[in-house]
Amino acid sequence: MTLRFEVLARDGRARKGRLSTPRGSFTTPCFMPVGTRAAVRTLDTADLEALKPPVVLANAYHLMMRPGPGLVEQMGGIHGFTGWSGHVLTDSGGYQVFSLDPKVDDHGAVFRSAYDGSTHRLTAEGVVDVQLQLGADIQMALDVCPPSDAPEAVLRLAVDRTAAWAARARRRFLEAGGPDAGASQFGIVQGGIDPALRVRSAARTTEVGFDGYAVGGLSVGESTLQMMEALEATVCCLPESRPRYFMGLGDPVGLVECVALGVDMFDCVLPTRLARHGTALTWEGRLNIANAPFAADDRPVDPHFPDSPIARYPRAYIRHLFNVDEPSAARLLTLHNVAWLLALMGSVQDAIADGVLDRLRHRVAEAWNRPVAQSQRPGS
Amino acid sequence: MTLRFEVLARDGRARKGRLSTPRGSFTTPCFMPVGTRAAVRTLDTADLEALKPPVVLANAYHLMMRPGPGLVEQMGGIHGFTGWSGHVLTDSGGYQVFSLDPKVDDHGAVFRSAYDGSTHRLTAEGVVDVQLQLGADIQMALDVCPPSDAPEAVLRLAVDRTAAWAARARRRFLEAGGPDAGASQFGIVQGGIDPALRVRSAARTTEVGFDGYAVGGLSVGESTLQMMEALEATVCCLPESRPRYFMGLGDPVGLVECVALGVDMFDCVLPTRLARHGTALTWEGRLNIANAPFAADDRPVDPHFPDSPIARYPRAYIRHLFNVDEPSAARLLTLHNVAWLLALMGSVQDAIADGVLDRLRHRVAEAWNRPVAQSQRPGS
Repeated sequence: MTLRFEVLARDGRARKGRLSTPRGSFTTPCFMPVGTRAAVRTLDTADLEALKPPVVLANAYHLMMRPGPGLVEQMGGIHGFTGWSGHVLTDSGGYQVFSLDPKVDDHGAVFRSAYDGSTHRLTAEGVVDVQLQLGADIQMALDVCPPSDAPEAVLRLAVDRTAAWAARARRRFLEAGGPDAGASQFGIVQGGIDPALRVRSAARTTEVGFDGYAVGGLSVGESTLQMMEALEATVCCLPESRPRYFMGLGDPVGLVECVALGVDMFDCVLPTRLARHGTALTWEGRLNIANAPFAADDRPVDPHFPDSPIARYPRAYIRHLFNVDEPSAARLLTLHNVAWLLALMGSVQDAIADGVLDRLRHRVAEAWNRPVAQSQRPGS
Repeated sequence: MTLRFEVLARDGRARKGRLSTPRGSFTTPCFMPVGTRAAVRTLDTADLEALKPPVVLANAYHLMMRPGPGLVEQMGGIHGFTGWSGHVLTDSGGYQVFSLDPKVDDHGAVFRSAYDGSTHRLTAEGVVDVQLQLGADIQMALDVCPPSDAPEAVLRLAVDRTAAWAARARRRFLEAGGPDAGASQFGIVQGGIDPALRVRSAARTTEVGFDGYAVGGLSVGESTLQMMEALEATVCCLPESRPRYFMGLGDPVGLVECVALGVDMFDCVLPTRLARHGTALTWEGRLNIANAPFAADDRPVDPHFPDSPIARYPRAYIRHLFNVDEPSAARLLTLHNVAWLLALMGSVQDAIADGVLDRLRHRVAEAWNRPVAQSQRPGS
């Protein structure tokens, strides 16, 4: 395997790990900011170099549509195109394509581009090729993403197709020289909120033998309890020796709770989207900078986070920039929110190493004003 | 006077100078980027610290409306509010207010806020007070800005009122302790494109005795020839010992041509506005990054400007960011355009010191594909 994963410390089911690829290594649990179209919205590569995220996401579907994988390949892959020399993980774009109401059969999905209405076909093999062209360090197999409220038959078919596509994707990845190119590939577990289906999907996906395993189709509208049960059923069936990636989760309470169940990697547009809407992540919970009390507030956005890249600015100034529609407001809060989540994950890693993750879970839950879930740790 | 101005070198009528205030000193001719609402659009203070503009503009009218001068004062003035420790020049906002169709009499202008329709009065004295509250290093006296096609009677009245308001503004500035606060104040010459009116306005403004003199009401739609004639008539009547500021000019050819007539300072939204529309300033002229030939272009935006803050990015990447509406595209081109104009002004200063400004004028005119104006230098 191109990707090595070493568990450095454990606290209950939570683990602190080190993930290594030919590009370098980073510690987990980690949060990966999302740069859908080869840029984290409002930021540039120099900003990312200052923030130092372990991995940046990009989206194969969006880059297939604009500017096209051939162009990105010609420019030296996504690393040459953007100048980012850290890890890049590309999502297959399955999630986006399934939101476009595609025609799906065993072969793949046919969909109309949201950019210009043109027709495209997504297959397990094609998505591997595109992600190799993009030069992703970690690529995701194409999965079937049914709506969260789909009937059981639809969920079962999705699990079966996801498994069949996973096998095809892995074969193509190995035949096309993915490992020689330094790339790794993750499979995705589906199954909705049905623990039994989750177990089945996890078994069939791990059977294929990927570098890592992702949990898809959660955090899409189900209750927290449903989500945690489905996640727990999934994680139990994933190998200890491989990284586990929860796709699309980014709220602070959710992050620490899922870490406690044994998840190693997360991505989400939440911190960047919230920022663009004027909401900052802080140790006092969500802070809406547009609120009147901040008009003359000379404190930084989060006084408990002195390392924030925008700690120099008073809340009053950021609020003013928002109120007069200065684009820099969204960028400054994006810098803050991404830095805040990266710092949180650093604290999570330290807490696991020190065996005090429970204390951090309570602190996060308290700050975010939500009840702590029943402890998911056996024996705690 | 709080402001000292020293001529370091001359080339024809052009001069290289050093302008010093209690805040520090910088060399001229210079270009000052515009941060209307206490931010240069798409940039933050850290960006400005990297770009190192000699002066940043802000607009008293806009800051009066949002967030209000009292709040800015409470936050330590515009420097405390934004964290920018360099020079700040505030425009009075006269230009903006006159675009709102105000009721004007000898006392001042009554106008409705473009923000919320509320009614406000702008007076020569009030604008001084606001700019002192904002903590500007250089403030502008309130002038009357008639439309560029106004009849002569309107232009004459504008010149007379501008002169009367200038005297009142200066009195208030001195009484209110402007110099003790380290502030300087510039008067503004009006008079449309009528050289005789320009001479008259210049005489009446200089009579008042300001720290520096601005040329207002030009570059608002008149022909280049009309502009240059009106400017020449104005500059001839301004004291050699004080800085001269052409308000609202930012195209490269215009800058070097007006420098050749003896102008020391410029501001304009042009470089930042062009950037937001995808246009870069380069030594090959205006470059519209959205154009198809740049799709696979791996060169930087301006290969002749290796010090560009975005020299690391290929044109293809910037074009992609524009094409998919990533907000970072506007910011990256803004960084480039501001840096490009600041570098141009550095070259202008060097050319004056070396007595080769004419050569630079030709180089700029050639790059920008416009004929060089008849030489404005006596004897050249």
